[in-house]
Amino acid sequence: MIYLLGGTGYIGRAFHRHLTRHGIAHRVVRRAELDYADPARLLAALRADRVTFLINAAGYTGKPNVDAAEHQKAECLFGNAVLPGRIAEACASARVPWGHVSSGCIYQGARPDGSGFTELDPPNFSFRAGPCSFYSGSKALGEEVLAAYPDVYQWRIRIPFDHLDHPRNYLSKLLRYPRLLDARNSLTHLAEFVPAALAFAEKRPEPGLYNFTNPGSVTTREITALLAATVAPGRDFAFFADEAEFMRTAASTPRSNCVLDSSKLLAAGIPLAPIHEALRAALAAWRPAPRDEVGSLS
Amino acid sequence: MIYLLGGTGYIGRAFHRHLTRHGIAHRVVRRAELDYADPARLLAALRADRVTFLINAAGYTGKPNVDAAEHQKAECLFGNAVLPGRIAEACASARVPWGHVSSGCIYQGARPDGSGFTELDPPNFSFRAGPCSFYSGSKALGEEVLAAYPDVYQWRIRIPFDHLDHPRNYLSKLLRYPRLLDARNSLTHLAEFVPAALAFAEKRPEPGLYNFTNPGSVTTREITALLAATVAPGRDFAFFADEAEFMRTAASTPRSNCVLDSSKLLAAGIPLAPIHEALRAALAAWRPAPRDEVGSLS
Repeated sequence: MIYLLGGTGYIGRAFHRHLTRHGIAHRVVRRAELDYADPARLLAALRADRVTFLINAAGYTGKPNVDAAEHQKAECLFGNAVLPGRIAEACASARVPWGHVSSGCIYQGARPDGSGFTELDPPNFSFRAGPCSFYSGSKALGEEVLAAYPDVYQWRIRIPFDHLDHPRNYLSKLLRYPRLLDARNSLTHLAEFVPAALAFAEKRPEPGLYNFTNPGSVTTREITALLAATVAPGRDFAFFADEAEFMRTAASTPRSNCVLDSSKLLAAGIPLAPIHEALRAALAAWRPAPRDEVGSLS
Repeated sequence: MIYLLGGTGYIGRAFHRHLTRHGIAHRVVRRAELDYADPARLLAALRADRVTFLINAAGYTGKPNVDAAEHQKAECLFGNAVLPGRIAEACASARVPWGHVSSGCIYQGARPDGSGFTELDPPNFSFRAGPCSFYSGSKALGEEVLAAYPDVYQWRIRIPFDHLDHPRNYLSKLLRYPRLLDARNSLTHLAEFVPAALAFAEKRPEPGLYNFTNPGSVTTREITALLAATVAPGRDFAFFADEAEFMRTAASTPRSNCVLDSSKLLAAGIPLAPIHEALRAALAAWRPAPRDEVGSLS
């Protein structure tokens, strides 16, 4: 039996769909039914349901975007740093291995030689190595909190995308934002992430941090070229002149743009497709949102 | 009616004693009775009890000392950064002004000219300006969380001392630690802090940060000389050779030692005695703990 926390969010729903479709025994745990921020309650439930693995897809993200965290700092810290620690307490007591959806947004840029950051590189876009967004700071603190626990996987995803049009899908955002910032990033193909994360429950590689991005990196302009060649034929995407203009006109807190090295994931026997291949696959299977949902995509 | 949160801790009990002794209407709010970490419940109670001022003396300190926070990071963040934000939410909705017991331990050292840090100086012993202890980092984040709220006083106390022997009283610690680190600090005389903090509820100076230490600073050796001349006649106190030896043998996380400028407090019409005078007053009124409590003072 797998417990899924945060099963109604963008990432959590993808887990829920996959678990349901594959007939894997699971329970989507809602805080209204079981306050999993209370370690004693979560522990009792883990034991009662004989849970074998837990997935935490709950956390604070900020709506419509990461800028919101600057105004909801207490909830951001609670969701991204305190809650993981509470879950870790319960899972450690129940001896339940688990996976936490962390974020690669605790890095900025790339290594001096252009290669991606590995799990051994300390975050460079965090409170301890600022400046950073409050959101990124809280995610890095969450990783510090979890470092003390023995049997947790920290899955660092970045800028998830998929073939399903959705306000949280990076491809949907690129299609709908009036202007874009060109930057180089590693990304996570959600349709690959979900089964790969579940493979951790089977293969049980060494616990700890895992950069969970598709190998390689891609620029925003490369993606818009793919979009213009597929689902948005001939579209002319508008770009900010540079990051300074973006910060001045569209954002209130700095954004992480970074390249991650995901070779540890590959070495664990859990490969993802190279990023350009993954993008082409998502666009080939693209499913636009029904028209009445478009309003919520802005 | 004043609400007192954290009324069973070292600082909270001093408030409780004072409020009781002076017949000031108050309620010591215990989380078991009223979960004040839930803004909706706290808001309802603030309205029902027609609360006019709230004092938050609840927080995570770490026992026996600040090193414990390194192993209880989630609870440290919750108590010192999330909880203040939750209280702020409720107080803002109820339009109840309030005071938060913050800490000056988010600074290290003094300004280059030897003078104390003012409220305009950004913390230099925090996650954003490390290295720091996890405790100090959490307290600095708590101040960031509260900066967004309009009607909160952040009272930065430091290393509280009093005439009542107690495991949390700095003078008791100096009397009982086998070896001491010599350092220069600003300190807070608890017997003065409590009525001065309550004066905020009456005088209602401008909300915001207040360094709440007795004017001036003092070294550990100056205090042990006072102790040897008063309550510990002729005692020869043992000292670490330097901070490196202290860190190597007695501590697992760096300590804040710092000088604060408390002239903003004075300008608000709320003066405290100069530090050496306050220390002499506490020692003149010294009340050793009953013998059966000594075991808990180690």
